[in-house]
Amino acid sequence: MRLSHLFTKTTKNVPADETARNAQLLIQAGFIHKEMAGVYAYMPLGLRVLEKIKNIVREEMNTVGGQEVLMTTLQPRDIWEKTDRWDDAKVDNWFKTKLASGAELGVGLTHEEPIVDASGNYVHSYKDLPFFTYQIANKFRNELRAKSGLLRGREFLMKDMYSFARSQEEHEQMYERAVEAYHKVYERLGIGDRTYRTYADGGIFTPRFSDEFQTLSDVGEDKIFVDETKKIAINEEIMTDDNLAKLGLNRGELVEKRGVEVGNTFHLESKYTDALDVYYVNEQGERRSIIMGCYGIGVSRLMGVVAELFSDDKGLVWPEAVAPARVYLVRIGGDDAIRHADELYEDLKASGIEVLYDDRDERPGAKFADSELMGIPYRITVSDRLIEAEKYEFTPRNSGETTELTRSELFAKLG
Amino acid sequence: MRLSHLFTKTTKNVPADETARNAQLLIQAGFIHKEMAGVYAYMPLGLRVLEKIKNIVREEMNTVGGQEVLMTTLQPRDIWEKTDRWDDAKVDNWFKTKLASGAELGVGLTHEEPIVDASGNYVHSYKDLPFFTYQIANKFRNELRAKSGLLRGREFLMKDMYSFARSQEEHEQMYERAVEAYHKVYERLGIGDRTYRTYADGGIFTPRFSDEFQTLSDVGEDKIFVDETKKIAINEEIMTDDNLAKLGLNRGELVEKRGVEVGNTFHLESKYTDALDVYYVNEQGERRSIIMGCYGIGVSRLMGVVAELFSDDKGLVWPEAVAPARVYLVRIGGDDAIRHADELYEDLKASGIEVLYDDRDERPGAKFADSELMGIPYRITVSDRLIEAEKYEFTPRNSGETTELTRSELFAKLG
Repeated sequence: MRLSHLFTKTTKNVPADETARNAQLLIQAGFIHKEMAGVYAYMPLGLRVLEKIKNIVREEMNTVGGQEVLMTTLQPRDIWEKTDRWDDAKVDNWFKTKLASGAELGVGLTHEEPIVDASGNYVHSYKDLPFFTYQIANKFRNELRAKSGLLRGREFLMKDMYSFARSQEEHEQMYERAVEAYHKVYERLGIGDRTYRTYADGGIFTPRFSDEFQTLSDVGEDKIFVDETKKIAINEEIMTDDNLAKLGLNRGELVEKRGVEVGNTFHLESKYTDALDVYYVNEQGERRSIIMGCYGIGVSRLMGVVAELFSDDKGLVWPEAVAPARVYLVRIGGDDAIRHADELYEDLKASGIEVLYDDRDERPGAKFADSELMGIPYRITVSDRLIEAEKYEFTPRNSGETTELTRSELFAKLG
Repeated sequence: MRLSHLFTKTTKNVPADETARNAQLLIQAGFIHKEMAGVYAYMPLGLRVLEKIKNIVREEMNTVGGQEVLMTTLQPRDIWEKTDRWDDAKVDNWFKTKLASGAELGVGLTHEEPIVDASGNYVHSYKDLPFFTYQIANKFRNELRAKSGLLRGREFLMKDMYSFARSQEEHEQMYERAVEAYHKVYERLGIGDRTYRTYADGGIFTPRFSDEFQTLSDVGEDKIFVDETKKIAINEEIMTDDNLAKLGLNRGELVEKRGVEVGNTFHLESKYTDALDVYYVNEQGERRSIIMGCYGIGVSRLMGVVAELFSDDKGLVWPEAVAPARVYLVRIGGDDAIRHADELYEDLKASGIEVLYDDRDERPGAKFADSELMGIPYRITVSDRLIEAEKYEFTPRNSGETTELTRSELFAKLG
């Protein structure tokens, strides 16, 4: 896309009302717009990043057989009363609203109840199980504070998957397949090496632990203890001697770190299916409980985490897998440069390479600064001097090291 | 996808609480799930249809240069007070909610205000204009009645595009380009021949007419009058002698029809930009108003319209462009049929053809009935008898006429 057409603009001004680095940078680069604390709109380049993260998550959920659905934001009261999660005294971060008729509605803060309720229409026999289903949709949580940019939203995009199994054994297998898919997501986003499966509290439905996926970061809200040899961690909230013994972890081998929770997986037992009266009949004709797992990934939070971790004093440094474009093409000079740059732009696009083409009448320094703030992986410069030398300037954003390449060398680098 | 894996199931039972044919069929086929009146969740096959419609709309908006964004559901009060659209006495179908701190929020029922407010960050000079921006996102409207299935939702998916122009002339050109894109969307969905550009009331901001796009249907809520020669219509609500004269329409040449509004386009003048203090500076350094247009398409409503129009007493009849799969593969028989059908399934997928493979242990009649209810464009049957004859049974859903084809004839048909 040509930058002269893009309606957003970068700004050097750090937004006064943002303390979170991820939000500051994303706003300055024109990727997001703040509606209110914890509520952000996605501008064209930000939406591209969000969609790329969504697609990575989607592909990995599809790989384990996840069937994608889309549940609703408006929620009827009755299904939540069956699990005792309607009352504000029980769940304190609901947004609620009212139908014109006066009936109270919830604004979806999570979706176990509606997913189980909908599945109940289709699941009757052992032949109808097992399955995974998931959605990628907005959640709404009435957080008192929301000062961390995309890391803690009042409105945020989440992938939530659910497994429905006929037995504990079947459940365990599905659960581990989902965990495997999670590791693949983090690897593809470039944060695999600093994201740890972390034992955490399992919630009120099971004596078992849940698993959090914690990405090491100084801005993380959670304190975790990492066993770097075993590549596993434990959340401070459950770090008792008892639990350490149970998990085979040794306090002396653990290193304290801060982490951002980029995913979590829970054993739900049959709490929701039983409460919503969803059972199956086995081969012997007997009614049996359905064992569930649930698996969350904060998609917009991941965008914030990646923005925060991959940045420097000049701006964002997107990994290629999620960058809004691979190449930032800078044009410097007159008619000859315009002709050459226009041609290279078309050739790059024809090769399937996403390009932001800075065709604006701006100083070279302003173009370079924007390419750095936006964090596009590769900058290519076309100028009168370079045309004469039959070269292109090539600068990876992460190293900042500029080399001069011939056309064939350039395409080989991007191949 | 193999139907033995699909977690949804069809049902012969017409849902007792639905009077709308589109919702009845979509629920029976397992495409959608009703959360409450006017609020539907999309199950795997329904989501595929919705995504295909979204992508058609997206492609046509991109073709006119639309830049996709994603605005938020939660809305702060202040921007809506600037246009006097906050007060429930002024806009009577808001859903509202409250922050934990007590501040009132809106649940996005439309997005002119936030789009204009966000754009204001980036638009200052004549060089920053013109542009189109759009989003595809949920809207929430507190409708008293919602009995028409996907045709009138309390929560529904909409594409809303906005044009920002420097002059009335520039606006007119953009407006007509958007209208052209709308016609292409309806053509691609197979409803082009029965969808009319229809003059309608322009709202309170302009003396000009707006344009509705009305698809002829007996279940339409609107009464329109069609000039079949000019391929244009007028909404009953503005059909005065004065207006007919203004539009060059002759009462005697108009035919009364019912229509479903599948899109609308409005001239907004500078009502929103002025109210939200978004101006531009022209080449002479003078402050000028920005002229806007807005362009809506009900994406989930379109799914309902297509379901309603393309159906018969056996079920849905999807046009190929939006069908959840092109082929429904029926397997009848034992090991030999299984082997042949498995192989054909893989070959079809390898040719890039989307297939629903009915690999279930069901009676042939049940499989045929499901293929008809789901409305998949082409049914292919593999059976012992056919294998012996080296043929496949091929049945287009819309004609219902079965022919026997060789393998090469079959692939030629699907080519």
